[in-house]
Amino acid sequence: MIVVLKPHTPTGGIDRVIREIERLGYKPHPVCGDIQTIVAAIGDETTHGSLETLTAWPEVESVMRVQKRYKLVTREGDRPDTTITVRGQKIGAGQPLCLMAGPCSVESETQLMTTAEAVKKAGATILRGGAFKPRTSPYEFQGLGEKGLKLLSKARDEFGLSIITELLSEADTDLVAEHADILQIGARNSQNFQLLIRAAKTGKPVLLKRGLSMRIEEWLLAAEYLLASGNPNVFLCERGIRTFETYTRNTLDLSAVAIAKKETHLPVIVDPSQGCGRADLVIEMCKGAIAMGADGLLVEVHPNPSQAWSDGQQQLDVSLFNELVRVISPFTQAAGRPQTT
Amino acid sequence: MIVVLKPHTPTGGIDRVIREIERLGYKPHPVCGDIQTIVAAIGDETTHGSLETLTAWPEVESVMRVQKRYKLVTREGDRPDTTITVRGQKIGAGQPLCLMAGPCSVESETQLMTTAEAVKKAGATILRGGAFKPRTSPYEFQGLGEKGLKLLSKARDEFGLSIITELLSEADTDLVAEHADILQIGARNSQNFQLLIRAAKTGKPVLLKRGLSMRIEEWLLAAEYLLASGNPNVFLCERGIRTFETYTRNTLDLSAVAIAKKETHLPVIVDPSQGCGRADLVIEMCKGAIAMGADGLLVEVHPNPSQAWSDGQQQLDVSLFNELVRVISPFTQAAGRPQTT
Amino acid sequence: MIVVLKPHTPTGGIDRVIREIERLGYKPHPVCGDIQTIVAAIGDETTHGSLETLTAWPEVESVMRVQKRYKLVTREGDRPDTTITVRGQKIGAGQPLCLMAGPCSVESETQLMTTAEAVKKAGATILRGGAFKPRTSPYEFQGLGEKGLKLLSKARDEFGLSIITELLSEADTDLVAEHADILQIGARNSQNFQLLIRAAKTGKPVLLKRGLSMRIEEWLLAAEYLLASGNPNVFLCERGIRTFETYTRNTLDLSAVAIAKKETHLPVIVDPSQGCGRADLVIEMCKGAIAMGADGLLVEVHPNPSQAWSDGQQQLDVSLFNELVRVISPFTQAAGRPQTT
Amino acid sequence: MIVVLKPHTPTGGIDRVIREIERLGYKPHPVCGDIQTIVAAIGDETTHGSLETLTAWPEVESVMRVQKRYKLVTREGDRPDTTITVRGQKIGAGQPLCLMAGPCSVESETQLMTTAEAVKKAGATILRGGAFKPRTSPYEFQGLGEKGLKLLSKARDEFGLSIITELLSEADTDLVAEHADILQIGARNSQNFQLLIRAAKTGKPVLLKRGLSMRIEEWLLAAEYLLASGNPNVFLCERGIRTFETYTRNTLDLSAVAIAKKETHLPVIVDPSQGCGRADLVIEMCKGAIAMGADGLLVEVHPNPSQAWSDGQQQLDVSLFNELVRVISPFTQAAGRPQTT
Repeated sequence: MIVVLKPHTPTGGIDRVIREIERLGYKPHPVCGDIQTIVAAIGDETTHGSLETLTAWPEVESVMRVQKRYKLVTREGDRPDTTITVRGQKIGAGQPLCLMAGPCSVESETQLMTTAEAVKKAGATILRGGAFKPRTSPYEFQGLGEKGLKLLSKARDEFGLSIITELLSEADTDLVAEHADILQIGARNSQNFQLLIRAAKTGKPVLLKRGLSMRIEEWLLAAEYLLASGNPNVFLCERGIRTFETYTRNTLDLSAVAIAKKETHLPVIVDPSQGCGRADLVIEMCKGAIAMGADGLLVEVHPNPSQAWSDGQQQLDVSLFNELVRVISPFTQAAGRPQTT
Repeated sequence: MIVVLKPHTPTGGIDRVIREIERLGYKPHPVCGDIQTIVAAIGDETTHGSLETLTAWPEVESVMRVQKRYKLVTREGDRPDTTITVRGQKIGAGQPLCLMAGPCSVESETQLMTTAEAVKKAGATILRGGAFKPRTSPYEFQGLGEKGLKLLSKARDEFGLSIITELLSEADTDLVAEHADILQIGARNSQNFQLLIRAAKTGKPVLLKRGLSMRIEEWLLAAEYLLASGNPNVFLCERGIRTFETYTRNTLDLSAVAIAKKETHLPVIVDPSQGCGRADLVIEMCKGAIAMGADGLLVEVHPNPSQAWSDGQQQLDVSLFNELVRVISPFTQAAGRPQTT
Repeated sequence: MIVVLKPHTPTGGIDRVIREIERLGYKPHPVCGDIQTIVAAIGDETTHGSLETLTAWPEVESVMRVQKRYKLVTREGDRPDTTITVRGQKIGAGQPLCLMAGPCSVESETQLMTTAEAVKKAGATILRGGAFKPRTSPYEFQGLGEKGLKLLSKARDEFGLSIITELLSEADTDLVAEHADILQIGARNSQNFQLLIRAAKTGKPVLLKRGLSMRIEEWLLAAEYLLASGNPNVFLCERGIRTFETYTRNTLDLSAVAIAKKETHLPVIVDPSQGCGRADLVIEMCKGAIAMGADGLLVEVHPNPSQAWSDGQQQLDVSLFNELVRVISPFTQAAGRPQTT
Repeated sequence: MIVVLKPHTPTGGIDRVIREIERLGYKPHPVCGDIQTIVAAIGDETTHGSLETLTAWPEVESVMRVQKRYKLVTREGDRPDTTITVRGQKIGAGQPLCLMAGPCSVESETQLMTTAEAVKKAGATILRGGAFKPRTSPYEFQGLGEKGLKLLSKARDEFGLSIITELLSEADTDLVAEHADILQIGARNSQNFQLLIRAAKTGKPVLLKRGLSMRIEEWLLAAEYLLASGNPNVFLCERGIRTFETYTRNTLDLSAVAIAKKETHLPVIVDPSQGCGRADLVIEMCKGAIAMGADGLLVEVHPNPSQAWSDGQQQLDVSLFNELVRVISPFTQAAGRPQTT
């Protein structure tokens, strides 16, 4: 770490800071400029106590980290890309683009099976569907719960699709893990570390959505919680961040795809439906996501979006989803990730 | 709700939308302009299905809500201000400013008791201290857990202070409620609705921090979850939002205090320590908070901030806390909220 | 517009609002719900005085716009895509991707000519280079001024490249227009309306960068100033918005490309260099931009970025620019916008 | 500056970076950690070329500034607070709170004189009023121009109020300076450096509004442009920043007041009208601003806000302004800044 002292700090003050840096287990290297002294503190920042508390000292202007804070998710040390196998399908770098699709919420057997059949036919291999729904208002539909999970399992049996569904509550972990092939952690729970740890320990692959105002470093550190809990099978999922823009529900940050691929060895999925909150932009967002290097897409599809029980405005109907699969094809080719048909 | 149709939508399309509005249980009132038609849909938006799904219709440009989405936290209907009684102390509108103070994390018996004695002497009535700590990195100190809770209970017995501490995990709810007088829900869990419901059901007062990128409406709807779960004793706590600014850790949004007081009947607390993340700004922030109408302050105090195990840079030492209490006094007077001494 | 009255507004208050709406030239249509009355006000919102002032009335809760505020940039009314011809080259929908490239600042004849030759050879048709530089600090290099402009003219003569350069000051308008083929309005001046009007009146095509915190509607309204001043040849340029993220200098908002193409008939250019502020991400950003429908790219290229006088960290060297042109080729093909070689 | 090298950079690469740092005029001090080497570069960062270009080097992970970039606005070096005298009235630290009030736009002689008389009577000493208005849409009222300026001059003559009005265009500088006692630079022009320089050179005091998404450092550097152009009489004005919140038009960042007072010697003014965009919050915002240390307030007042030609929703009527002056009185007392009556 670098400890920057205030301009014109007297020698006594500099010494005091240096001794404290030593006391905290770092090796201090002071460098005196004309105006300011800085002290480079050598030591492993991930194991020692943080020097950031020194910011509270009267002599100290600021403390800057040097080392990256994540150790397991980093690409450093030439780690190979992680490929995650879900019911026989390999997902990750070098693999064909993975299509995850399905309704925002599981609403009924008919709704789910219709959708499952359609997305399977269009080329999706993983079925999404929320059984437990986090809703901004307590008066909105909260999901079918266990009944929804059972319908998802049924759809898997019937159509051979893998299942991804959201885990909302620590208390439901075993139940959800029993029915899901991938556990989804939603944006609102992206720093609910207890839930992350519980999810990781099921051994199931976990898809970690980026929180609404999560810096990329924080997102990767949340993923670090999953890996540090013994689960290497983590998908990062960009789903839009909160900005000042009001045209879209969120601002889909496609640069995060390139950055996550550059910084980590984990597969990256893009959720364009949450990402923009408008069905009429989803297809364009998918093209961009593929070009930026996404390993998969998570798309909301509903047989009749205008009658959906949640987020109808962002769900594609079956014919639009078919169009999506068609028009992204040149881009998956260009990206060297063609889907096998 | 207001459904805005696209310019020049033909009559057939307008009729189709009107019929769907009826089907969803609303009474449609179309108003035809020269360019665009809008349909006002009469009905209770909090009980019917949402018309927002209509946004997915080709005829529809946008759907606007009219009614507010919160029913219990609102001041509408001339509800009186909520006063919350914590171990005999009344907190809320018309009451003296409530001072909650203590260390970021409980670290040891000596650290906690020293702080408790000091903040009590300075005028605080509630002791804060984290036993379970949500940390961005898995490699940071995660709190003493149950041991920390027991130390908090001991401090209450010894100094007659009430205890506020954070609840992080559904699984710990009973344990934390056993030791705490107020359950704190942190910013990262502000939309962890399962945790909110569990916390509410303990019957203990709950302090709900605003999430880093929570709109005020979302914050009030999260509070609505608490009230809808049967717990009327909810403190709203502003603790800084995430913006583009880097000088401070967060941007303390003091306007949120005035807005929350105007929109709701709940007491509002300000956390200036998290809010700016710099000890050298805390006192000024407290003055502003009081002037804006805050009912209480939640301040981090540590006997030796530069050696704190977490967030040392934002904790006041005892002498600064004493100064804080002294210099805010004219402002509590000005606000008509003098502390009894 | 829609005027939403407060719940339980008495009849007298409703009447008062209705009369004011009439006085302001709108035709009021009140719709009374059980709790709230809304008044739809029919009239052309772009010519009448705004009803937003009604928000100041005690009876009024909010005022919502219905109509879009831009009339000339909109795609509504089936306007065809605008194609802009710059020294014989057509740019816009259906045309090959347009490559604009060159140094952040013009520094010297050698630097500029070397770059011009290299980017021309790689396939660029337009040379960028700042002669007047807006710099955050007054102590940073402010550009070569007129000398820089003359070097740009010389490069045009020598290499047959068109020139785009930034206009910073009303006072320099004629001078810059004399040397430039496209006038660039930078992000900091995107709502400097006097400069926009001056730029428009030169008759030269204008490239309007999106401001750091400009909503898309505001960006399009700034473009509307240009068209309303009689200049139809406007490029919209996305160059990153300001968010909470710190990994990149700005967050390149590629969704804005799709939205601008959907809402307007104007060509859209993406500046990935400013957009992320890191050379190592530029190529990926370009792929995404092309997939999202960009009509052109504006890329910073410098013969020796590490010795650039401004923004070296985001400029590509010549070999990276050559690589860029090579690797985007499959994506321009996929987007149906192949460059002719 | 601190140059952080990538982990495991070989000696040759380290040497190459060190030589470049020397070449750029800094004295390099390498400090080798187990994993990473950092190089502290000693030299005056405000005069040398920036090392930030080194970020483009393959060996370099990041470059961190140590020194502050502003030299004239800083409080460092124990500079005394700047007090600005406007037509005999001293404004700044230690002086009574300065009240600037008046309409958003000058609309007519009657409107302006009525307001001027009322705000004078209530205790304001400076009259605000826009003659040139920057408007998001070209179809909105753009101000009376020179006619408005003459009305302001007339109000000064009649009521003995000083005049503050916005300068929008370099071309109007002399004209506006002829009529104004303080030149206001609006948020949209806060980084229009050419306009800043022109304004500074008039010799009139300048009030610099913070831009919508300006970091505090950038705001202070924009002020640095004014001081570096020879004008020491600069007011900083916080007027709300752009965030994700939609309840208010902007988020008034009162913490910026405390920070600007701490970092600089300049007086700080708060504009609560723009800051929240809602008349019903202005009074509370003023209380907060005073408590945070503001030296003055800039408040929009209109004789009939609901019929204002711009921004009626945020303007106070005369009776509310009188109430404002009354209710802030205890807070100006508490802040030691009582207005003389």
